[in-house]
Amino acid sequence: MSTLRARWARDETVHACWLTLPDPLAAEILACQGWPALVVDLQHGALDDAIALNVLQALHGTGCAPLVRLPWPEPAAAMRALDRGAEVVIAPMVAGVEQAARFVAACLYPPQGERSWGPVRAGLESAPTYAAEANQRVVPIVQVETVGALADLDAMLALPGLGGVFVGPNDLGWALGFGPGSDREEPELVAIIEDIARRARAAGRLAGIHCGTATHARRMAAVGYRLITIGSDASLLAQGGRSLLASL
Amino acid sequence: MSTLRARWARDETVHACWLTLPDPLAAEILACQGWPALVVDLQHGALDDAIALNVLQALHGTGCAPLVRLPWPEPAAAMRALDRGAEVVIAPMVAGVEQAARFVAACLYPPQGERSWGPVRAGLESAPTYAAEANQRVVPIVQVETVGALADLDAMLALPGLGGVFVGPNDLGWALGFGPGSDREEPELVAIIEDIARRARAAGRLAGIHCGTATHARRMAAVGYRLITIGSDASLLAQGGRSLLASL
Amino acid sequence: MSTLRARWARDETVHACWLTLPDPLAAEILACQGWPALVVDLQHGALDDAIALNVLQALHGTGCAPLVRLPWPEPAAAMRALDRGAEVVIAPMVAGVEQAARFVAACLYPPQGERSWGPVRAGLESAPTYAAEANQRVVPIVQVETVGALADLDAMLALPGLGGVFVGPNDLGWALGFGPGSDREEPELVAIIEDIARRARAAGRLAGIHCGTATHARRMAAVGYRLITIGSDASLLAQGGRSLLASL
Amino acid sequence: MSTLRARWARDETVHACWLTLPDPLAAEILACQGWPALVVDLQHGALDDAIALNVLQALHGTGCAPLVRLPWPEPAAAMRALDRGAEVVIAPMVAGVEQAARFVAACLYPPQGERSWGPVRAGLESAPTYAAEANQRVVPIVQVETVGALADLDAMLALPGLGGVFVGPNDLGWALGFGPGSDREEPELVAIIEDIARRARAAGRLAGIHCGTATHARRMAAVGYRLITIGSDASLLAQGGRSLLASL
Amino acid sequence: MSTLRARWARDETVHACWLTLPDPLAAEILACQGWPALVVDLQHGALDDAIALNVLQALHGTGCAPLVRLPWPEPAAAMRALDRGAEVVIAPMVAGVEQAARFVAACLYPPQGERSWGPVRAGLESAPTYAAEANQRVVPIVQVETVGALADLDAMLALPGLGGVFVGPNDLGWALGFGPGSDREEPELVAIIEDIARRARAAGRLAGIHCGTATHARRMAAVGYRLITIGSDASLLAQGGRSLLASL
Amino acid sequence: MSTLRARWARDETVHACWLTLPDPLAAEILACQGWPALVVDLQHGALDDAIALNVLQALHGTGCAPLVRLPWPEPAAAMRALDRGAEVVIAPMVAGVEQAARFVAACLYPPQGERSWGPVRAGLESAPTYAAEANQRVVPIVQVETVGALADLDAMLALPGLGGVFVGPNDLGWALGFGPGSDREEPELVAIIEDIARRARAAGRLAGIHCGTATHARRMAAVGYRLITIGSDASLLAQGGRSLLASL
Repeated sequence: MSTLRARWARDETVHACWLTLPDPLAAEILACQGWPALVVDLQHGALDDAIALNVLQALHGTGCAPLVRLPWPEPAAAMRALDRGAEVVIAPMVAGVEQAARFVAACLYPPQGERSWGPVRAGLESAPTYAAEANQRVVPIVQVETVGALADLDAMLALPGLGGVFVGPNDLGWALGFGPGSDREEPELVAIIEDIARRARAAGRLAGIHCGTATHARRMAAVGYRLITIGSDASLLAQGGRSLLASL
Repeated sequence: MSTLRARWARDETVHACWLTLPDPLAAEILACQGWPALVVDLQHGALDDAIALNVLQALHGTGCAPLVRLPWPEPAAAMRALDRGAEVVIAPMVAGVEQAARFVAACLYPPQGERSWGPVRAGLESAPTYAAEANQRVVPIVQVETVGALADLDAMLALPGLGGVFVGPNDLGWALGFGPGSDREEPELVAIIEDIARRARAAGRLAGIHCGTATHARRMAAVGYRLITIGSDASLLAQGGRSLLASL
Repeated sequence: MSTLRARWARDETVHACWLTLPDPLAAEILACQGWPALVVDLQHGALDDAIALNVLQALHGTGCAPLVRLPWPEPAAAMRALDRGAEVVIAPMVAGVEQAARFVAACLYPPQGERSWGPVRAGLESAPTYAAEANQRVVPIVQVETVGALADLDAMLALPGLGGVFVGPNDLGWALGFGPGSDREEPELVAIIEDIARRARAAGRLAGIHCGTATHARRMAAVGYRLITIGSDASLLAQGGRSLLASL
Repeated sequence: MSTLRARWARDETVHACWLTLPDPLAAEILACQGWPALVVDLQHGALDDAIALNVLQALHGTGCAPLVRLPWPEPAAAMRALDRGAEVVIAPMVAGVEQAARFVAACLYPPQGERSWGPVRAGLESAPTYAAEANQRVVPIVQVETVGALADLDAMLALPGLGGVFVGPNDLGWALGFGPGSDREEPELVAIIEDIARRARAAGRLAGIHCGTATHARRMAAVGYRLITIGSDASLLAQGGRSLLASL
Repeated sequence: MSTLRARWARDETVHACWLTLPDPLAAEILACQGWPALVVDLQHGALDDAIALNVLQALHGTGCAPLVRLPWPEPAAAMRALDRGAEVVIAPMVAGVEQAARFVAACLYPPQGERSWGPVRAGLESAPTYAAEANQRVVPIVQVETVGALADLDAMLALPGLGGVFVGPNDLGWALGFGPGSDREEPELVAIIEDIARRARAAGRLAGIHCGTATHARRMAAVGYRLITIGSDASLLAQGGRSLLASL
Repeated sequence: MSTLRARWARDETVHACWLTLPDPLAAEILACQGWPALVVDLQHGALDDAIALNVLQALHGTGCAPLVRLPWPEPAAAMRALDRGAEVVIAPMVAGVEQAARFVAACLYPPQGERSWGPVRAGLESAPTYAAEANQRVVPIVQVETVGALADLDAMLALPGLGGVFVGPNDLGWALGFGPGSDREEPELVAIIEDIARRARAAGRLAGIHCGTATHARRMAAVGYRLITIGSDASLLAQGGRSLLASL
């Protein structure tokens, strides 16, 4: 994970693929293809906490950093993911700054926050020093995909301890009345999305976004997004299976 | 599932049995006995999301429609069930119209609601058109089993997108001071239960209820209830095991 | 388990139901109905060793004795079941006395047999004395359901350490050319089945058989069978579900 | 469990070890060492509801009482644990009396509370009488480990139906500005912790606390704490593994 | 499955992809891409019997036929797969005609074979008639990938009840001294592989083979192979993940 | 694993602890205490292949080498463990040289052996070169714990490709008529055990043994044993839990 933070410190763009299958082997297979990061999707994915733990174990040692998207922006979910060893956690569907603040507080030990002590797996390798280091290692990221989160963007970016913001273009566009879709082309929406990256960077925070194609990923990187998710185990399997069958 | 909606459109009564065992094979066995619907009980049952997914997979293709009762009336739980392919979802212990509205919103994509996009299994068979069809296919049902829900009944029935209401006679009776019990005989409570069906039907909504016996199920059907749950895998197993042993 | 051995010592008939569902809760539910014994079916059931362990844990403390039918008459399968705490183990499809002898040897520590040491769960409650007691506690039972096993019956009954024989009427009848069926009425086959019980009892061994109905169970008890299996979790669920649905 | 309540009625101190490994066998092994109680830790532990059910089944019949710490002080989590057979449930990170009251209400059937009916496993052994007895058998315990809970202590202790309070010294100390640590020596904090026990006992409630060493456990027992947790499966394994390796 | 048998009866070529991930959702995703058949690989895949059951349930109702490759050519493994609902079963690493005969016997009920009765899932949908139909529905296939199997090919093809043979080009080539590789180009080996198809067809048996590319699959279809496996969930995921990453 | 082979090449003694709990987290916890190797015990342990895979994934990247003891000396079990990434595999209860030869053959690809191709996880990190390297990386070890294996020792040690022999002192002592026990003191048995190490070393093979205490481990290391197993997760948990409780 330190590699990831170092890359972001050097303003490098990190690409990550989503994990939605309840299977640590699928995760390990993707990690072995060279992905620098994979995101365990506890929101839309078919994994639960038990399998997420196994996925975190499987990714450890592969050189691929595991990010975790929580099922919901709830303190308990954040603490559980962190206790099990996640360090970069993404909270989806954040309604506004109040919920964002609660989420960030849940990610940090006192006095910065109110995370409860008990790092059952997180502290395994660095037990004696974990309490002192944890707040530096954890990167809480809130998704900007609701009207409320967009309205509260500056207030959220000002939250001490926040690691960054992550745009869910599908939900955000839909919430703003533009209909679903990943790689937004609507000028008004494009402007909003570019503005989010600018404001995040101005505030010294990481900006992230999901993209549907490599072309769009490059465009978003050019705009300042430094965490770019693309594809998923499920979509790779579906597309690969469909085109292999078609080739027959 | 379309069969189920069609039957309700024709004002037919649908019977369903509860699934509480954490075992897709038990679900498949019941489905193969001809039940038109089974309800995955994530509230009181011993299943969790991981096994519920396997149960939904096992029921698919059997001709038996899977309903899902959520563990609690929370948006995250509703979205997760829908992403995994549930279409008729029942929210238990709804406190009143505000919670009901949040639940219904969680079941529907914008602009009708605020469901988050990511139908990892739900969109498998109809990927390109799922976004357009989902709001028509989903049937959100709220349970009427608290004092607050009963008080807010008309407001809940007026919620756009609500599929129906479902009476939990045990909890409702207990909450109203009548003690526990499934097939209520207390005149005051019977009047309330009959009134719920009338008001739901008047509002163009489905009315559902749990019954303890076939006799009571017929009575409730006569009153207008069109989704009637009865029995469970666990109770069938217990009763069957007890009477087989007694016969020896 | 000692209760079970005591009952057999008093020549009492023990009834047991089959467990085929991969679910410890289903097992516990049946145990709570008063069954003196349940048989974990690793041959035809949908359980594997991992769930069988959980079933053994669930039944412990309920007053219901867990029997285990192995997937196949192999030493490794027998030792694994015993290490996990099974004491009465049934080997299906035994081909003849040679295979029976290997199975019995696998159930007993030296010098009586060649079971390998490592009672990971079996020795939990009686660690210091388990090595000394195990051979007295274990009851290896071979099924008589092939032509070879029937031919070798007397040789098998003479094996030191054998606990008993168990008739699979379906497979035995089919193997002998009579077609499938549980409660055999073919005079020739009835004679064979009655003879097995007589010879087993004469050799001081337990005789067991599967029955399809309570009536037939009584008939088999009268003939001398002292372990009588009947029904299964799956069939109870199917029958119960079917008749509940029919009552609607 | 009745043993546990009886011991507390006699003002005896009960020691319990934490279960954090997702494995019923680890739980059973600890139970067989003579522990009177073990706490399934759904907050920091790596277990989820599915495995917790198996752990409850494994502990049943061992003479060791299973306590359950919920993942969060939410009604749904409390009801689920109770339905699966837990009787002593501990709610962590309670923010204050309002949340404590909702938790206690979730643990009790009407009219004392608003627990929803459906004891899928809890009612297995005493089905007919469970409704009448449940409120007497359940022991809801709230953790005192936040500033709010400490401030609301008397109000919480006055909640009808509350079983007791449980001090999390690490989180409480940290929240009060003392930094992390189990066996607190800071005079101010020691005074607070001793005061909690006094006030709990004065209110006729059980007082519990987590301790890091046997010495401190004795000190806390002397102060009036009657539920004392110490160690965990994970820490026993780590310490044992480390010292065995060191001995080589 | 009847569709599959019908297609083979019309001498059509059926393509199938391998399932090696322990995840029913991955299987369902592939099935939804239109594959007519998928092979559950219990030999090299990371699935076990418990997950294979869930995969069979997930594929049921998708229009995609599930084949099962056993872990080893053992009667117990064959019976278990059949009891759980597999109909086309492939035995790997068959050493010769004797082992092939035992495998075929394990797949068929008497008098044709010696399969043990207990179709816990297989008989669910056709309980009353399953015993009479099973032998017609089951298609036992032996792999030709050892020196012994190749030597015994004609004897194996003459086994009554055998459904077909399936060439494992990698193992067969390696066993014959040609080194590993999927799409064989060595003239001597090509001749052998073409000859196997000819002899199988002459004997009225299905011929199958694994191929590495669509081009080779067409060549093998031209030679007479009618079951052609290609790709796997794991390789699709790896290739898709690698090329998506490369595109960034 | 290369570290392990390098250490053995330098004639260093490697200590390993047994894993018998079905839980990857327990394995990871032990690995984090600094153990150079842990042995997944598929014979007496409560793990199955599915969990063993997760354990292998969890240990990868910890610096602790995973060894796997098979459930039985069967080719299928050996190949499955190797395909999933095990490299040092131990076959228990080997009856003699014939079974040992079959086991070694199952561990090696042609022309040295007859392992079947399909390294679903083993080949993940070195896909293109795995076929060429595998036979050098795999270390097949046979247990010497039966009368037959002891008699065939020299023949087994002469098997090309064999990595070493491992003494099971409990089973071996019992088989030879000495009763159970780990750290043997019987002069005749001690002589045999010392002789095994000598003959193994003379043949250029690794000698391994299980020990009950650190003292005995040192003695066995002095005699020439270079793989010494001691303790298990289950025994560490039991002993630790017992002494913690006693300290209270």
